Amino acid sequence: MLRLLRPIPVYIIFAPLIITESVLRRFTENIFLAMGCSEEHAQLSADVLLKSDLRGIDSHGVARLIGYVRLWEKKRINTKPNISIVHETPTTATVDGDAGLGLVVAPFAMQLAINKAEKYGSGWVSVRNSNHFGIAGYHALLAVENDMIGFAMTNASPLVSPTYSSERLLGTNPMCYAFPAGKYPPVIVDMATSAAANGKLEIAQRLGKQVPEGWIQDIDGQPTTDPHALKSGGSLLPLGSDAEHGSHKGFGLGATVDILSAVLSGANYGPWVPPFVSFLDPPNDPVGSGIGHFVGAMRVDGFRPVDEFKAHLDNWIERFKSSATVDPDKKVIIPGEPEAAAEAERKVSGVPLVDAVVTDLNGLAEKFGIGKLEA
Amino acid sequence: MLRLLRPIPVYIIFAPLIITESVLRRFTENIFLAMGCSEEHAQLSADVLLKSDLRGIDSHGVARLIGYVRLWEKKRINTKPNISIVHETPTTATVDGDAGLGLVVAPFAMQLAINKAEKYGSGWVSVRNSNHFGIAGYHALLAVENDMIGFAMTNASPLVSPTYSSERLLGTNPMCYAFPAGKYPPVIVDMATSAAANGKLEIAQRLGKQVPEGWIQDIDGQPTTDPHALKSGGSLLPLGSDAEHGSHKGFGLGATVDILSAVLSGANYGPWVPPFVSFLDPPNDPVGSGIGHFVGAMRVDGFRPVDEFKAHLDNWIERFKSSATVDPDKKVIIPGEPEAAAEAERKVSGVPLVDAVVTDLNGLAEKFGIGKLEA
Repeated sequence: MLRLLRPIPVYIIFAPLIITESVLRRFTENIFLAMGCSEEHAQLSADVLLKSDLRGIDSHGVARLIGYVRLWEKKRINTKPNISIVHETPTTATVDGDAGLGLVVAPFAMQLAINKAEKYGSGWVSVRNSNHFGIAGYHALLAVENDMIGFAMTNASPLVSPTYSSERLLGTNPMCYAFPAGKYPPVIVDMATSAAANGKLEIAQRLGKQVPEGWIQDIDGQPTTDPHALKSGGSLLPLGSDAEHGSHKGFGLGATVDILSAVLSGANYGPWVPPFVSFLDPPNDPVGSGIGHFVGAMRVDGFRPVDEFKAHLDNWIERFKSSATVDPDKKVIIPGEPEAAAEAERKVSGVPLVDAVVTDLNGLAEKFGIGKLEA
Repeated sequence: MLRLLRPIPVYIIFAPLIITESVLRRFTENIFLAMGCSEEHAQLSADVLLKSDLRGIDSHGVARLIGYVRLWEKKRINTKPNISIVHETPTTATVDGDAGLGLVVAPFAMQLAINKAEKYGSGWVSVRNSNHFGIAGYHALLAVENDMIGFAMTNASPLVSPTYSSERLLGTNPMCYAFPAGKYPPVIVDMATSAAANGKLEIAQRLGKQVPEGWIQDIDGQPTTDPHALKSGGSLLPLGSDAEHGSHKGFGLGATVDILSAVLSGANYGPWVPPFVSFLDPPNDPVGSGIGHFVGAMRVDGFRPVDEFKAHLDNWIERFKSSATVDPDKKVIIPGEPEAAAEAERKVSGVPLVDAVVTDLNGLAEKFGIGKLEA
């Protein structure tokens, strides 16, 4: 996951509660068990969320737990899904997630892709009838652990306007490419295809700050720097921000994610993607089932010996890391490196949670009659 | 190919010579034959360049012919290559282009990917020891013609600085994703991973205009609007332009292209990629062979019936095309649509060539003793 603004420092301003990994993991598993998940699914779902929190991607970790619970309460998430392969060739497949948590459906799909890659060199799975799958990087990393190159993408609730449009027609539709290195952490490019992710707007809202031009437009499609504009009908802008700076490319990437994840699998696409928030109903004229993902795995040794590849990727990393920079205090950041550093640190020191998240989580604990989080 | 600024209007200002497709095709084939290409390779190379000119992507068509000739004169292009498969599994392969024209090496690789996809559902080929392959869209379209989804990317001469860097470490590294539609032209996302392509700078230079901030930086890494800054040691900026607007994402995409095309195949990567221009020598400490490409094909019916996919992609296109826009004169542009329109028009009306290109081409005609282009 490649992010330059790590939210940790902002959260620290709000004096977060620090929770050890094992405590937070058990708590999260207990919530999923209370929702009716099997032991295996509860563990897996918690693992996906914890990975995000450990890697410093706080917006996609346990902060989302209350969102999953609310969708389950609305019967939009099925915690006992019968995940099935509905179509397949030796190296491709379409999976129906049976409205399950994306946190379990996407790893199922990626394991299928990995199995196919073991046998034939590569495997590609498009997924329909799923829900939010957490961080794309989790799924792509499953391939990397097998000395494969991992691909993961998903469509999402419409929040982004194509170039020239004033309508929200695409999600932030992240794409992730992950590569195993030798001495260094894997190179993981994991990025929303919008100029800025929603999480950055939330931080600005909390701090009462304006956002840069080029992140969002208001309900009439006019440029704005008000971070609340999204809530009042505005939209996020594609990567590139405006036509002059290549926003048609960000739109093209978001479109690619939408087509591979949903037009290919039979999920909903474009403005028909069901919203993640439970207070908004899904469109009543669906064009498919649930939301869609696309994952893939290619064996590195399907192209060249793994050791050779890793040695050259290490060389690539070293050359880019040692690049001359404009400001000597700012170094070139290798995609995935800050997240690997955060993971190493938080595995020891614990995960900081802001007050609002602790309040949400302890509300869930009360609802389900399980132990609360404490400092 | 998704481009908002089609160069045609600019060129028309310069009173171009209009050449019919068949005349320009024969002329181009004759140049390749004179360089020692086989009949088959000359036809294929001309087809790749003509496709670009017909589709309105004038920067990548016959305007590049003189560049290929100069590299051949420097013995950096081998017009009688023994293109070989050096490593393979049922669905993956590495191809060595034997320093051939990318215009023939990439179609060889894509045909191999298509053959694998026919048998196993998908095929993926990484290529080393190649040269500039023209427009990525040409190669991806070969898959589309077989009701497959096409992927094509290539690394290129270093001109782009990663976020925070003042060095040129990546090429404009285009990526292309192409999808077959039903009633409509294929959706083709074909984009440089830089904020602006080099061709747009050339247009600004010719018109004596400044370029927008966010396209380039000068040799010290400072923002500039001087389109000549690139020639004096400056660099292009990644898609996103600056850290605040997500240039780390453009960098991540360019890195992905570099790794899949070159670290995976054994080609040169990053700053070691040989320059396209013949007056600059390749680095004397290569880390691989030539430049690299990556292509892939996936059968649509490996996921769902082709007719279903095409009907839904048509629906996707119609929904996006009919989107409300901010300016009623500007519609949402479907990736690949303007190029398909240009191709339909230029197949009838011919290809407009600016004076500078005609002068170059007729210089080549003289050099090789073949007939000149005339109005």
